[in-house]
Amino acid sequence: MIKHQVRRTYGPRVLSSHGSFAGCFRLDFNEKLFKRNYRDPVLVSCTDGVGTKVKLAAQLKIHDTVGQDLVAMSVNDLIVQGAEPLFFLDYVAVHKLDPRVATQIVKGVADGCVQADCALLGGETAEMPDVYRRGDFDLAGFAVGVCELKRLITGSRAEPGDVVLGLASSGIHANGFSLVRAIVKEAKLNLNQVYPKLDKNRPLGQVLMTPTRIYARPVTAVLRRYTVKQVVTAMSHITGGGLPGNVSRTLGSHLNVKINRRAWEVPPVFRFLQTHGRIKDKEMMKVFNLGIGFVLVVRRHFAESVKEQLLRHDMPCWTLGQIVRGTGRLVLV
Amino acid sequence: MIKHQVRRTYGPRVLSSHGSFAGCFRLDFNEKLFKRNYRDPVLVSCTDGVGTKVKLAAQLKIHDTVGQDLVAMSVNDLIVQGAEPLFFLDYVAVHKLDPRVATQIVKGVADGCVQADCALLGGETAEMPDVYRRGDFDLAGFAVGVCELKRLITGSRAEPGDVVLGLASSGIHANGFSLVRAIVKEAKLNLNQVYPKLDKNRPLGQVLMTPTRIYARPVTAVLRRYTVKQVVTAMSHITGGGLPGNVSRTLGSHLNVKINRRAWEVPPVFRFLQTHGRIKDKEMMKVFNLGIGFVLVVRRHFAESVKEQLLRHDMPCWTLGQIVRGTGRLVLV
Repeated sequence: MIKHQVRRTYGPRVLSSHGSFAGCFRLDFNEKLFKRNYRDPVLVSCTDGVGTKVKLAAQLKIHDTVGQDLVAMSVNDLIVQGAEPLFFLDYVAVHKLDPRVATQIVKGVADGCVQADCALLGGETAEMPDVYRRGDFDLAGFAVGVCELKRLITGSRAEPGDVVLGLASSGIHANGFSLVRAIVKEAKLNLNQVYPKLDKNRPLGQVLMTPTRIYARPVTAVLRRYTVKQVVTAMSHITGGGLPGNVSRTLGSHLNVKINRRAWEVPPVFRFLQTHGRIKDKEMMKVFNLGIGFVLVVRRHFAESVKEQLLRHDMPCWTLGQIVRGTGRLVLV
Repeated sequence: MIKHQVRRTYGPRVLSSHGSFAGCFRLDFNEKLFKRNYRDPVLVSCTDGVGTKVKLAAQLKIHDTVGQDLVAMSVNDLIVQGAEPLFFLDYVAVHKLDPRVATQIVKGVADGCVQADCALLGGETAEMPDVYRRGDFDLAGFAVGVCELKRLITGSRAEPGDVVLGLASSGIHANGFSLVRAIVKEAKLNLNQVYPKLDKNRPLGQVLMTPTRIYARPVTAVLRRYTVKQVVTAMSHITGGGLPGNVSRTLGSHLNVKINRRAWEVPPVFRFLQTHGRIKDKEMMKVFNLGIGFVLVVRRHFAESVKEQLLRHDMPCWTLGQIVRGTGRLVLV
């Protein structure tokens, strides 16, 4: 079953061989044997887990979506640098191996890999009853992508006047779950109950477990559209630290990011948690994505055209503000 | 402190940039701008943890060597396919972040990366008090290497007559620690005691924690020495499953591996554990490396010359046996 899940992520660049100790992936495409795909390839790589979202998954016994979160957390970091995802590997550590649960976890990882157009090249499952409690598990993911050296996006080309676009998140993604779980506990919320103000059909637990959106396809499509004019000057994946902690992170200390708080609507799940947990606006902003999961900084004259591209990929987005001269801060107006 | 540990693994191919979300690594060397280093590069990648060796590390509060085990477990798998290690990433999950412990863990990882000639390109530290108990932690590692397509080693070129060379392990490496811990408990062994039959100076705990040997340098040296004549036809990293589970794994089902049990001396630590735990020979062979951590299968006429190369890299090795016609099994004589 797991083998089947893994195989459906394979493209023609995966070389599989009997009993191998490591996964093998051809950097160049097969069909262009006499033409190199990359002039000066830069490998881009990162690792991440899904934090204590695993704890909620274990509690709710929803095991088939955290795998997508795992892929999203690493792949969304990787595309920030302008890279296209190539392959992914997962590490799954459990109390005791339950084949049904393991298959569901890997199914989620494979779903994520398919969405990110990358191969699930390898993985490891570790059974450690003395480290993990009954039912508990942890996940670590690792992604590798490639980018042409001269198209690497570092944020250094951003200038005053560039427009800041926000891409919709699918919900809480995989950050801030220690706070989420504290709010649920303190406010005595029932994870199995439907709260109409939050969602008319799905119980709270299911809403919280909504998997992290993977931005690889829409972002890669935008980058491929403008290969000569490099209209995207910086990007951010909105994880721990929220908009303030991530948007200005790659920009120089001579720039500020000016964002209009009313440019987008904060989804109900954040309002719901804020009300029940009596959390201050400032903390909400620092812990959660508040509806914006990914940010693109683009040249002003191309902003509308980039937005059209994104919408064509069913990617809701908003103009949040712009880059101005400053001191390396995020300014909310 | 951690930044310093990471920086010492950087070579000229690592591109670092302010606030970046992912690590960037140039596939080709800088100095040969107009010459490609790889004609048809295959990326080779794998992931592993160190199993319940983390539990012993936590118990003994020896945190500065498991990082080397972590690098070894993945890098030794990667070189089996003929790849040279490029970079490594680590995921460290803890109950509560203790900067001193975290620095020691990362120091071990950096030590391993230096020994494997790869860059520590990224990492993630996760604090999860609800998943890990006080003092407990877990590690996952990911390695990426590169191999020229036509020099990929898959075991398919191995033939009857090829010679099997065994490379010395440093001790138990990072497999079988559930059994090790069970023996220590059942036989009421004292981890802080020096047992002269085992080691004249180091207490039992320290002997058990000896970090896994990294075979990257000697193996890469052998592969680079014979680039035209491909004298190495198969390799194995001896992990869980021992010699029987790993040596014939990559070979065709028409070949057997014939190994002479008396070709090498089993180190004292294995004898010590076997005696105190009253473990059968067959189980010892399946759980532990018994002194052989890595295996090379080489063309007969080059066996002596490869052994000389290995010894020149201070790598003790023995001729264990040879490849014969068969049914895909390991035969001990």
